[in-house]
Amino acid sequence: MTQARTSTAQLEEELAQIRRYEDFSTIDWVKDAIIERYRQSSIQTQNRNDTSWRAWRKLTYETTQTWIVVTLVGAAIGLNSALIAIVTDWLSDIKLGYCSEAWWLNQKFCCWEIEARDGSCENWIHWSQALHMGPDVFVVKWIFYVFWATLFATTCAYLVKVFAPYAAGSGISEIKCILAGFVMRGFLGSWTLMMKSVGLTMAVASNLSIGKEGPSVHMACCVGNVISRCFQKFRTSKAEMREILTASSAAGVAVAFGSPIGGVLFALEEMSSTFPNRTMWKSFFCAMIATMVLQAMNPFRTGKLVMFQVSYDREWHFFEYLFVVVIGIFGGLYGALVIKFNLIVAQLRKRYLKNYGVSEAAALAFFTALIAYPNVFMRIDMTEIMGILFRECEGAQGENYYGLCETNGVGRLVVLLLVATVLRTIGTIVTYGCRVPCGIFVPSMAIGATFGRMIGLLVKAWQVSNPDFFLFASCNPDMPCITPGTYAFLGAAAALCGVMRITVSVVVIMFELTGQITYILPTMIALMITRAVGDWFGADGIADRYIRLNGYPFLDKEDHVFGVPVSHVMQSEMTVMTATGMKFKEIDEILRNTNFQGFPVVQDNKSMAFIGYIGRSELRYLLDKARSVYKAHDTTGVRFSPDTNEDPEVLTSTSDVDHVIPGSSDFLDFGPYVDQTPITVHPKLYLETVMDMFKQLGPRVVLLEQGGKLVGLVTIKDVLRYMARIETSNTTDEAIDDMEQSDCMRSLMAWISRRSGRTGTYTQLNSQPEEEIHELHGR
Amino acid sequence: MTQARTSTAQLEEELAQIRRYEDFSTIDWVKDAIIERYRQSSIQTQNRNDTSWRAWRKLTYETTQTWIVVTLVGAAIGLNSALIAIVTDWLSDIKLGYCSEAWWLNQKFCCWEIEARDGSCENWIHWSQALHMGPDVFVVKWIFYVFWATLFATTCAYLVKVFAPYAAGSGISEIKCILAGFVMRGFLGSWTLMMKSVGLTMAVASNLSIGKEGPSVHMACCVGNVISRCFQKFRTSKAEMREILTASSAAGVAVAFGSPIGGVLFALEEMSSTFPNRTMWKSFFCAMIATMVLQAMNPFRTGKLVMFQVSYDREWHFFEYLFVVVIGIFGGLYGALVIKFNLIVAQLRKRYLKNYGVSEAAALAFFTALIAYPNVFMRIDMTEIMGILFRECEGAQGENYYGLCETNGVGRLVVLLLVATVLRTIGTIVTYGCRVPCGIFVPSMAIGATFGRMIGLLVKAWQVSNPDFFLFASCNPDMPCITPGTYAFLGAAAALCGVMRITVSVVVIMFELTGQITYILPTMIALMITRAVGDWFGADGIADRYIRLNGYPFLDKEDHVFGVPVSHVMQSEMTVMTATGMKFKEIDEILRNTNFQGFPVVQDNKSMAFIGYIGRSELRYLLDKARSVYKAHDTTGVRFSPDTNEDPEVLTSTSDVDHVIPGSSDFLDFGPYVDQTPITVHPKLYLETVMDMFKQLGPRVVLLEQGGKLVGLVTIKDVLRYMARIETSNTTDEAIDDMEQSDCMRSLMAWISRRSGRTGTYTQLNSQPEEEIHELHGR
Repeated sequence: MTQARTSTAQLEEELAQIRRYEDFSTIDWVKDAIIERYRQSSIQTQNRNDTSWRAWRKLTYETTQTWIVVTLVGAAIGLNSALIAIVTDWLSDIKLGYCSEAWWLNQKFCCWEIEARDGSCENWIHWSQALHMGPDVFVVKWIFYVFWATLFATTCAYLVKVFAPYAAGSGISEIKCILAGFVMRGFLGSWTLMMKSVGLTMAVASNLSIGKEGPSVHMACCVGNVISRCFQKFRTSKAEMREILTASSAAGVAVAFGSPIGGVLFALEEMSSTFPNRTMWKSFFCAMIATMVLQAMNPFRTGKLVMFQVSYDREWHFFEYLFVVVIGIFGGLYGALVIKFNLIVAQLRKRYLKNYGVSEAAALAFFTALIAYPNVFMRIDMTEIMGILFRECEGAQGENYYGLCETNGVGRLVVLLLVATVLRTIGTIVTYGCRVPCGIFVPSMAIGATFGRMIGLLVKAWQVSNPDFFLFASCNPDMPCITPGTYAFLGAAAALCGVMRITVSVVVIMFELTGQITYILPTMIALMITRAVGDWFGADGIADRYIRLNGYPFLDKEDHVFGVPVSHVMQSEMTVMTATGMKFKEIDEILRNTNFQGFPVVQDNKSMAFIGYIGRSELRYLLDKARSVYKAHDTTGVRFSPDTNEDPEVLTSTSDVDHVIPGSSDFLDFGPYVDQTPITVHPKLYLETVMDMFKQLGPRVVLLEQGGKLVGLVTIKDVLRYMARIETSNTTDEAIDDMEQSDCMRSLMAWISRRSGRTGTYTQLNSQPEEEIHELHGR
Repeated sequence: MTQARTSTAQLEEELAQIRRYEDFSTIDWVKDAIIERYRQSSIQTQNRNDTSWRAWRKLTYETTQTWIVVTLVGAAIGLNSALIAIVTDWLSDIKLGYCSEAWWLNQKFCCWEIEARDGSCENWIHWSQALHMGPDVFVVKWIFYVFWATLFATTCAYLVKVFAPYAAGSGISEIKCILAGFVMRGFLGSWTLMMKSVGLTMAVASNLSIGKEGPSVHMACCVGNVISRCFQKFRTSKAEMREILTASSAAGVAVAFGSPIGGVLFALEEMSSTFPNRTMWKSFFCAMIATMVLQAMNPFRTGKLVMFQVSYDREWHFFEYLFVVVIGIFGGLYGALVIKFNLIVAQLRKRYLKNYGVSEAAALAFFTALIAYPNVFMRIDMTEIMGILFRECEGAQGENYYGLCETNGVGRLVVLLLVATVLRTIGTIVTYGCRVPCGIFVPSMAIGATFGRMIGLLVKAWQVSNPDFFLFASCNPDMPCITPGTYAFLGAAAALCGVMRITVSVVVIMFELTGQITYILPTMIALMITRAVGDWFGADGIADRYIRLNGYPFLDKEDHVFGVPVSHVMQSEMTVMTATGMKFKEIDEILRNTNFQGFPVVQDNKSMAFIGYIGRSELRYLLDKARSVYKAHDTTGVRFSPDTNEDPEVLTSTSDVDHVIPGSSDFLDFGPYVDQTPITVHPKLYLETVMDMFKQLGPRVVLLEQGGKLVGLVTIKDVLRYMARIETSNTTDEAIDDMEQSDCMRSLMAWISRRSGRTGTYTQLNSQPEEEIHELHGR
């Protein structure tokens, strides 16, 4: 039995070598789980009766290895995040001036403890000063600001384009697919990590409407992948690797927001398809280590984990729920708007700007900087402005926060904030998805915060001017009644929820971000409304929409109702292997001419009596082996009949063949390699149940068998194809909500097509994958 | 199509009426999901084209209903919890004396703001005072203490026995099973809720070694069940009901510890088998509402959600990790010890004390009180003592906390704490599981806290006496180096983790409990060690062990490696229905003589060609209907051949029969009611994969089909039976760790049997279900 296990393991290792080169395929989690279980049990069996020091060490190493890796990954993520924060800060300030003492210091450190009374500092030279034009020449500052921003964005886009195209964008959509079992070679590689880290500092510093949170998740997963693949265990087991990647994504959010529990919940709510307890514990640990390393590095010298320390100590009035509803509705509308138009922009970008990524980024940075500079709420860093918008004015110790706390001039402030909200929304729509590393978390939150603060200021002004209005009866006349900062806080949460469609993690992230739990009920109510409004326009967040846009094989977590049997969706025209009568050449040609990931095996083409399933990689391996070892030639016969004896102790039917294909140069028996137990279902089973199987169990393919006869097969791609068909056809009741959107989008696309003299419908565009993302292979 | 759906829905409703009386059966989640999807889609279809106000209201109500229920449930849980806290407090104090001003006040409120300088208060009359024997006669106080404790426990056990036997015990194990799909009628009923609430106040006040956290979860689920079953939606859909119950369990923990996020994570980690995002969001909301209501009720007049406000402001020294390891090991050993011996006690209780629940509780309370009173750390309420043990001495403003802060007399303190640790451990072992409402959370935490504080005191004493020892080099000589309170904190976390085997939720609960996140790393390390030590003795927590003890059909979340095909486990002797040739009487007799929950349908007994599956309730329904409507008699022929036409638009094959069984009094066609698409697998499929199917998809039965032929069937019970067999047999490598335990237990049981003149082995005992929990029906 041990022997059998060992040989199975060896075979699996050889096969793993081949499988590693299957790009754009999906992982069969059912098989992976079996392989991994036997790997573990064989280690235990091997070492159980061996009481030597080495065996003990091996067993201990086996158990502690994962924790060592998680710790290393967490620490590396924290470190990387701290370095990026420092560099980004410096680059951001470079846009304004430089430090005369030491060019590598940013404004804060340059002026550390030597700041003059009026807030200026001698060591920090503004660019207009550097040109000896005086310290405050607006136009010169503006020009320099625009120049540096454009330079950063261009460099960044160029680096990304040349060294690691995968480093562009947010990465969250792709990681969701990878965690669900999609293989994208290089997406989590070291080059991507490096370019994304370098590029992100510049992209953020260029003041584009992008955030670093999405990329932070991507970088964290790169770190997780790069470190863990140094260990044999994680190279072999896809499930173990998935755990590390899930933990890394939690750590990515944790360092981005200083929010370890929020990170874990984000991984649970948004990223992972499966989340068993051991993954949760690893995610928690990884997020914790990463946050602690970041805190120890202390890149901002605040010594705090909480990014925006606020202390709202006033109570919430009942009438304010009215405005909570307004903010909630705003969040939902904002999300729907951004998702809709950003996707149109993404399609246009795919179509017309595919080869102009660098120029596009340059142009975007140029215009963003040009427009942003005059408005203070757009000029400074988004994270900083958020912190300011969340603050209360009372107890601000004379600080004015860019005029936010002035009691008169509310009108001007409101206009500034409204302009900032609108312009930044447009900026986010056109920028998110361009060929630089970019996230949508922080821009959304910043937009929500400006809007929320604006509402807060308006309500406050209203209350101050009409204190006797019936709504404000509950206000204490001796105290400020409205705290606009809390409205900004709610707005940020609502906008983030609107665009990502995550709820619990947003609540926890907001609390960990601000160290504040007084306003938990208003926050939850705002998010419920946001969610309801958003769902009215379509249930998917932007990450899921990008997945569909790119045609990745991913089933979202939502429940769908189709009301059709799975046979509606199946491929009934299959390339099958027959148990007997096939020749070497025939199989070789099938492999060369198709790109299916596997083939059902049947008794013969006529009866279609179902025997099993054989994977493409196994077949490839066997053919190569047969050719080299057995000198198989084109006419060698191949048999696929598996051993039918039911020896209960034999673990896998390959166990006793030990790398030898039975047969001679005239005859090959591939039978032992046929998987006799793929997941099979009745063709009348509901499609929804099969989708649950794909989501929960994760097989690569589900075979349809009726009365022992193979009827068809279904993959995730087939299900997705069916869903897309439903959505674009008008006949099904269930898809009406989605329809409205795609209708509108289709007509817009049609209009654009007519304009540009091309023909093409939305549907075609939609199913056309990105150039770099080569056509998904087969099933 | 609409018509078809409606009739299906009506039929389902009728069937639901029958199914409701299936006690001790398991829910088929696969079917439930299908039914629920069609219910939802039919509501949408019905109302989509109807633009009237009523249709809009109906749709809106349908969507908001769940939230209304969640809010109501949360509020009721908070309210119930507050009431229990108030009554428990009062009853606890009654043991010591009464309020002369108003008998219904507890000591704290009786003495509210009128406390004298020395801490005494005139209004509060100690029992020895009441007898005019002076205020401080130790023996009299002791006697009264014992008297009241015994009285409370006896009353409680009596009430539980008479009115709601299900109210005894913790309830967590059962709720885990219910959430996984096990039906236990009355377990979550209003009588259970009432008796558990009333009983719990007395049980806790009686100073037994029990906590109120487990029962709090049970009561919360009762509240959830009682409220939600007033709504049609939750009566019909088991999945919706499960969501409400999961949310309720989260709220139960949330109110017990004042820890909303911890509650959600507890529900995720310990309670639920499936935890989709919408459940998480509902749990979060429910927990939040419950906590807020509790806080608004403010039963302790502290105005704080945080139960034990502590502020550890000193840093953690590296050498202290050594003691973290000690505490972690203690947690693991404590857990293993309690689980092991408590289970033995539980078996003895089942065997010998089944009818003596009241006397047992009385005796336990009597001895516990007798022993506990002289030791201050055992006399006062466990929650209170925990809060005291967590505290720092510095900044205690002269408070002495029962001598804990005295600098000399450490020896006496250590002895007291050690005695408290040991005695309370014994108390917990013998008490947990007795026939009163009882939880194991708080006793475990209290034990951990006394042990931790003891270690802390020892380390402190060592450091103070040997400040130059190399270990203490990092201590600042001008400041206290060791904070014993933090050791107590760690000990509580470790002991809780050791006994329940939950990790992330413990971390979060501890932080929400104390409002303290400084010591996150030591806590996590302690828990990792606890977990590792505990796993060495067996991976399951006490809740899972009780599930196995009681023989509930529940697969735990752990991965198992068996390495056998599912055919090893299957029942190959099945009672099947044949497509043709069966008579009415025959079927009626099968139903009467067996208690299987359903029957496979095959072409004939010889070929066993697989056709489908029919449930017991459907069959029962059809037979009754046939008898009453069609006047079927004993010799009426019954056919089970389903319609094989594959009309794609027909949703279920029952859609066009509309409550009419085709046929006459001589011939009945049950074909349309046969489920043609039960989950089937190949008999060679690995058992582990089938277990995954049970866990993830939740079918009631998995049928084994090979080449169109029915080979056998598997239920969760079969899998559990196989697991039990492996564990008690000596042949399998994998079960060695578990073996050691059961070996030991078996020999102990054998010894006891010999003593008592009975025969019987552990295995028999183990598979013997509790009397009240009738034998599980069938498969």
